[in-house]
Formats: sequence, C-alpha cells, structure tokens
Amino acid sequence: MWKPDRSLNKPLYQQIADHLEQRISLGELPSGSLLPAERKLSEQLGVNRSTVVQAYEELRASGLIESMKGSGTRVSPRKWGKTSRRTPNWNRYVEGGILQPSLPFMRRIREGLQSGETVINLAYGELAAELCPNDTITSLIRNEPFDQPLGYGDPQGYVPLRTALTSFLHEHRSIQATNQSILITSGSQQSLYLITQGLLSPGDAIAIENPSYCYSLPMFQSAGIRLFGMAVDEHGVIPDDILNLYTQHRIRMVFLNPNYHNPTGTVLSPERRIAILRICEQLGIPIVEDDPFSLTALDEEVPPPLKMLDQNGTVLYIGSLSKIAASGLRIGWMVAPHSVIQRLADARQQMDFGLSIFPQWIAAHFLASPELSPHLIQLRDQLRFRRDVMAQALQRQLADEVSFELPKGGLNLWCRINRPVNDYALLENGLKHGVAFVPGSVYGSESGFVRFTYARPSVHEIEPGIAQFAMALRKTME
Amino acid sequence: MWKPDRSLNKPLYQQIADHLEQRISLGELPSGSLLPAERKLSEQLGVNRSTVVQAYEELRASGLIESMKGSGTRVSPRKWGKTSRRTPNWNRYVEGGILQPSLPFMRRIREGLQSGETVINLAYGELAAELCPNDTITSLIRNEPFDQPLGYGDPQGYVPLRTALTSFLHEHRSIQATNQSILITSGSQQSLYLITQGLLSPGDAIAIENPSYCYSLPMFQSAGIRLFGMAVDEHGVIPDDILNLYTQHRIRMVFLNPNYHNPTGTVLSPERRIAILRICEQLGIPIVEDDPFSLTALDEEVPPPLKMLDQNGTVLYIGSLSKIAASGLRIGWMVAPHSVIQRLADARQQMDFGLSIFPQWIAAHFLASPELSPHLIQLRDQLRFRRDVMAQALQRQLADEVSFELPKGGLNLWCRINRPVNDYALLENGLKHGVAFVPGSVYGSESGFVRFTYARPSVHEIEPGIAQFAMALRKTME
Repeated sequence: MWKPDRSLNKPLYQQIADHLEQRISLGELPSGSLLPAERKLSEQLGVNRSTVVQAYEELRASGLIESMKGSGTRVSPRKWGKTSRRTPNWNRYVEGGILQPSLPFMRRIREGLQSGETVINLAYGELAAELCPNDTITSLIRNEPFDQPLGYGDPQGYVPLRTALTSFLHEHRSIQATNQSILITSGSQQSLYLITQGLLSPGDAIAIENPSYCYSLPMFQSAGIRLFGMAVDEHGVIPDDILNLYTQHRIRMVFLNPNYHNPTGTVLSPERRIAILRICEQLGIPIVEDDPFSLTALDEEVPPPLKMLDQNGTVLYIGSLSKIAASGLRIGWMVAPHSVIQRLADARQQMDFGLSIFPQWIAAHFLASPELSPHLIQLRDQLRFRRDVMAQALQRQLADEVSFELPKGGLNLWCRINRPVNDYALLENGLKHGVAFVPGSVYGSESGFVRFTYARPSVHEIEPGIAQFAMALRKTME
Repeated sequence: MWKPDRSLNKPLYQQIADHLEQRISLGELPSGSLLPAERKLSEQLGVNRSTVVQAYEELRASGLIESMKGSGTRVSPRKWGKTSRRTPNWNRYVEGGILQPSLPFMRRIREGLQSGETVINLAYGELAAELCPNDTITSLIRNEPFDQPLGYGDPQGYVPLRTALTSFLHEHRSIQATNQSILITSGSQQSLYLITQGLLSPGDAIAIENPSYCYSLPMFQSAGIRLFGMAVDEHGVIPDDILNLYTQHRIRMVFLNPNYHNPTGTVLSPERRIAILRICEQLGIPIVEDDPFSLTALDEEVPPPLKMLDQNGTVLYIGSLSKIAASGLRIGWMVAPHSVIQRLADARQQMDFGLSIFPQWIAAHFLASPELSPHLIQLRDQLRFRRDVMAQALQRQLADEVSFELPKGGLNLWCRINRPVNDYALLENGLKHGVAFVPGSVYGSESGFVRFTYARPSVHEIEPGIAQFAMALRKTME
C-alpha cells in the first residue's frame, strides 16, 4: 500500500493530495466514490489527522472532492475525467462495444446486494455455501497429488475430465458420449455463448421458451439473434409451436430447458419430448438442451434428458456442475457431434485460450469420487427442506396475494402475484426492505411474476426473506 | 466404457455394429476417423476377434466404414450425416457463426503437432514444462488450506488476487494500481477479446505494429475491426505513424507490445514512448499496452512499462502469468480506469460468468510467495541459455541462409530467410522433417520470416529442431 515518503522535501499533506489526485485522474477512484474518513486514513498512512484534513482541504479547493455532512467525503461527480483535457473520453468507449451490458434489473439487483446493507439474496440462482461439497473438495485438493503439466491444455478440455464425464453422463443421465464428443466449458453460460457466436449468424431466428432464462441473457442481442418465444404450460412448450415458428420465421435452432425449467420449474412431458424431437428431426433443426437442474429432483426420480432419445445427433446437450456442486468451479460441458465440438473448441481459443487446468483437475476427481452420490442425495434433501420452508412461508404470509406450483426440482420457485403490480416499484421496495429477488419480466414474462431462489439464502433467511417481500409487496400495492 | 451385453438376445457382433453405427451417426466418430484394429477392439470389449471382424463387415456392407490395405479401417468420408436424412446439416452451422476460425497456418501447425508423429515444437509461444514453477505450485496446493466460498465470484476477480497484484505490479512493474482498477482475466487473450467486444464497434479502426501478434488473432476480424499496421524498426514503431493513421483513418485505439515485441523481440525506445504517449494524449486515443514478456529480460534490467509514464489514464495495461509462470493457470489482468473495468467485468459475465476460484486462489498465493523472485531469476537464466543454444545452432547450420538479431528478452527469435521462400511449402517441409515453427506472414509480415520459440521445446530439442529446419529449408529452396 502507498505511504507518504518522509525523506522527501514535499510536505506530507501535499504528497497525500497528489497521490489521491492521481488515483482520481486515472479513474481508479471513480466519480462519486467514498474516500476513507479522515481519522481512518490518518491511521492507515501513519500521519496526524490534521495532515489528512489539510490534504482533503486541498482537494476540495480544487473541486476534485466534496464533503457532505453525514455522508462523508466523495470524489466529485463532474470532475472525473476533467482533471486533464487529455484523458480519453472513456464514456464513449464504455458505451460502445458489441457485447450488450447486463439488463438494468440485473444490475440493480447486483448493486442492491453489494450496497453494504443487509439484503437477503433470493435472487441468484446458485447454491448457498453450506450446500457445496466444500469438505470433499478441500480434502481432494490436499490429498490428491497434483502432477499435471501447466501448459496450454487440449482445446476440448482436460482429457481425464472428459473421460470422467463419459462415465458420469452414462450413469446419471443415460447419455452415451465419447471423449471426442465432449467440450469442457466455463459453465453452461460459456456453452450458450459459444453456440451464439460460433454456430449462429446475425439475423438468425431461434425459438425459446417464454418465459425463459435466455431472455435474461443479453448475449443473444449482442449476437444479433432474433428470439421467438413459445408459451410454457404445466407440461412445457407445445410441439406445434415449433412448426409454426419455422414456417413463419425459419427458426434455425430451438433452445429448451426440459427439466425443472428456469424460471417456472416445469418438466416437459414425455409425449411432447418425442413430438418435439420428431418435428426438429424432420425440419433438420438442432435442439440445444440446457440441463442444469435434473439431478436436483426433489419429489420424484431424476427425469431423463431429451438427449437420451436422440438417435440422430439433433440435440446439443449442455450441463454443468454449477447447480449441483459449486458455481465457483466454473465447469460445464457440451455433448455434440465432433465437427461441432471442434468448431467451438477452436472458437473458444480466441476468447480465452481454454480453461485453467486446476478446476478441471478438481472436477475430474470430484466426478470420480465415492463422495459424489452421497453429496447429491444430501443436496436433494436439503433443497427439498428449503423449498418447503419457502412454500410454507408464502402460504402463511401471502396466501391471498400470490399463487404458485410447488417445484418438483431445481433451485427456484416461480410465483405469481394475484393483483397487478409494477415490477420496478416492487423490486425497489424489496431492496429497501432488505430482500432481493428477480422480477419475472427479466425472463420475458408479463409483469406480476417473481422468481425466488430457495437454494441461495441460508435456511434461516428464507422465512424472514419472504416476510420482507410481503412487506414490500404491500407497500407497492398501497 | 461401453461393452456388449451378453444377457441380451441380440448377437454380440450386432450389438457392436449398432453401437458403432450410433457413434458414427451422432458424429462422435467423425468422417475419416480411424477405428481400432480388430485385434485391439476385441481385447477391449472382451470378445473373440471374429466377432469384431463380423461387426466391421456389417458396417462395411452398409457403407459406413471402409478398410484400406495398410491404413486400417476408417469411417467413410461421405457417409457421415447421411445415415439418417433427418440429421441437421451441421456443416451449415459449423461454417456460420460470428467468431472466425483460427488461421489456416495455425490450424495446420496444431494438426501437425497432434498427428502422433514426433514433431519438435518451436511454434507455441509458451514455457516448457520444466520452466514452470511446478514444485512451488504443487506444494502450495498441498499446504495452503483451501477455505474459500465456492459460489460465483466477484465479477472483477478474486479480491485477494487483486490485492496481491497491486503489490506485484508496484514492485515489479512500477505501476500504481488499486483493487478497483484491476480486472482478472483468462490470460491476456481474454483481455484483448474483451476490449474488442466491449469497447470497440464494428468498423472501428485501430493501429497495431506490423508485424504483430494481433494479426494472428481472428478476433479482430470477428469483431469487424479494421487493422492498420505501423512498421517496426529496431527501436519499435515510429510515433508520427500514429498521427498519420489518425488523420487518414480516425483510428480509435493503438495496440502496442513495447517490451520484447512479439514476434520481432524489439524494445520500444524511451524517446519514442514519451512521444507516443504525448500524441495519444493529444488525440484522446487510448493505448492498449500488452506486456507479457518484460520479466523475461535476458541481458539487461527489466524495462519499465509504458503505463508507468501514464499520468492521465490513457493506457490500458495488460499482463499475465502465462509467459513468466504457467500458461495453464490462465491468469491475466488488465489495469484501467474503473469505468472501463466495470464495463468489461459486466461484459465478461455474459461470456463465461467469471473465472474459477481455484486458479485465482493459486495465483494469489504464488504472487505473494517468497518463491516468486527466485523463480523469475532462474527462468531468465534458463531462457538465456536456450536462446543462446538456438542462436548458435542457427549460426552453425544456417549462417549464410538466415539472419537475425539476438532477442534481449521474451520467448521468441525472429529469423529472416535471406533468399525468397514460399511460406506454405516451408511449413509443410518443416512438419515433414519433424519441426514446427510459425511462418512470419501469420503476424502480417512479408513472406520469408519465421518465428522460433526457444522456450517451448526441451533444451536438447533445440539443436535438432534447427537442424531439421535447415533440412526443410534446403528442401524448399531446391
């Protein structure tokens, strides 16, 4: 950490002021950001408080910072970027680019969760720390000798991980795959990104469920892809909708999440699976099957994937460890014909030169570990308990205001607000009352829906989280 | 692994034939791929050889595979994708997509290295296994308790790694950075990709060195960016060229690799650095400084980065552990104004949802380790030795045919062929003679240059590698 240099001729307060000015003009202390309190900074730098007071006064005088009673000292909103007329106009660059920024709702949620206030997180679709197999992974790291080469790896992914996956997919998903037909990715997210960037072209039309997780991903817009939604009822999408969309818009792919669909929790019925596969085969349209949740079946046998029925290489199958082990591993996979895998492995080299060996090495050992099956059983038990806690809390507190189906698997509960409500106001009130969730419109649904995650909060936060949501909802309805 | 099921009614040979047919029709055994020899497959499956012979005959009869005397049994070239008329036309998808495939030369080199023949690798710009700090990393994994949360991480990267980097950048690169101004990336490659996708728009013009590593990256073409080259002499690019390109083409960014430039090894002179920075400041054009090689200075003090001179936040600074520790870590970083970092961190979420915690955790410990400095000293000593072995081999074997400057740092030696030569024929002859290298035209130079990497092969491969190159060159000149 930087400290003033007492051996210099320059007064300490001036050194501090100059240092802060440079941080501000380099954009490291962005406009509006909070500076440390005078007392705290003087302790950190080992100087008298009066020295810091003098430095801050200097910066205030030049308009770089401003102090407001009760809210501390901040970098002035308008001055950043103006300390030198020669700084690039970064705003122009930041607002450019092909990749669209995250949706405003998602940014607002992230902001709310990072604000420093206590906000119960019913928004992020991931496992709470206590649901992850930390002990298994920690002991694996400690006990398995790491002796792998540290060079750039195979573009398709670490071979022992692909081998472990062929067994895992065979045993748990009834999928026959080979090393050549698997690509290791940074979670399902990267599989989807690779498909949009490597197999589709700007202007291409695709069919997705409506609502769908896909609507929350600006990557489709970034790639210039046109999205056409298919309504989801309690048995999933309706097969004939695919035919209609093909006739009308020449869709080039169908994206489906058949098991515990995100956000609604629906499972696509067996009859519709067969019908959809038949239609797509006849049309020669590939199906992208996103299958993150199947192994979190809560009340029934784990449902098989669509891929199991695929005899012709029509289905690109996507899975990951994010929702069943740990999102921080960033390990996902795609099963597809070799020519597709090869194309996307090559494309991925351009983006990031492949994944680090370490998470792949850990994942290979984890998938082959005798701890895997007990972990999955325990995970399902804990998720079932959490889901029930959430459902009961909703019944108790909002029986008249909301309605929902109990999800039979997955991490999320899809909740309908019975009376019309403004999504934006509801989220703002939620954050004010200390709870974050995702408004359904993020997933393309009409307003008046909410997605709650019971996997992410700790168990004892679920009931208060719903109570805070109830208050926010009533406030919004006022 | 799949095995035939003796309890079924279906004959074993038929089960094997059906299994292989399915693998072929799913595209897992691509067209032209080699099937195991009959004897080998019979051992693997635990059946008589005659059973495999019968299965292969069945598949040959249906035209799915074909056997050629002396070259084994292969999947028929034309049949894949035709086993069912209902398979999607994958070729159409594979040939589409926004992301351009790798350059033909780079694909040819990868193919040559993966062919199974012994080919000495003077092509890949990375460290040989014995130059990586394997022992340090292995003992770090074994001895540091891993107790980090396994959820999605901070979009900017693991905080302790960013903290370790501020010290590292301060100590080794004289760069003042803060946690807020650092983004952790999957190597420099991802930093470059994020800049092209997040800050530039299709049609934008940028200036790069000529030759430049950037020419080998299809990512610029994928993003629709127009590249304008600036000639490199022994002191780097000429500052006024930037002004000229701005006047003519309104370039929006300048990409530079000032220290041990890839591929030429040049160091940008101090006078030109100041001049370039001044011009870019006046024009308000950001400079992207790619700085992977500085710490591999071989004959002199480690040169400072351009970023050190930057008082206005004009320079986006990119670095990584790939060329100084291990490319398989996939850890790189960008130092930039906070608004830029924030934009690119958000864009990166769309691509891969951030990096795995594990390589970040390892890198944080490695950067803070007392082993870092001894490793860097040893690395420089070994690279110097390798460079000298390569230079002597070239002098001994090709004194009249080639000319080169001894690189003062980096991993590569840039070599001019004194007489005109066809790049394509030279590479093919090289691979035939068992040596891979990168033709200079990959980096945008005129033909008749070659980039050799002395870091990638083992020490005892360097001399034979150059000998094989000498043979290939003479063959090409015939």
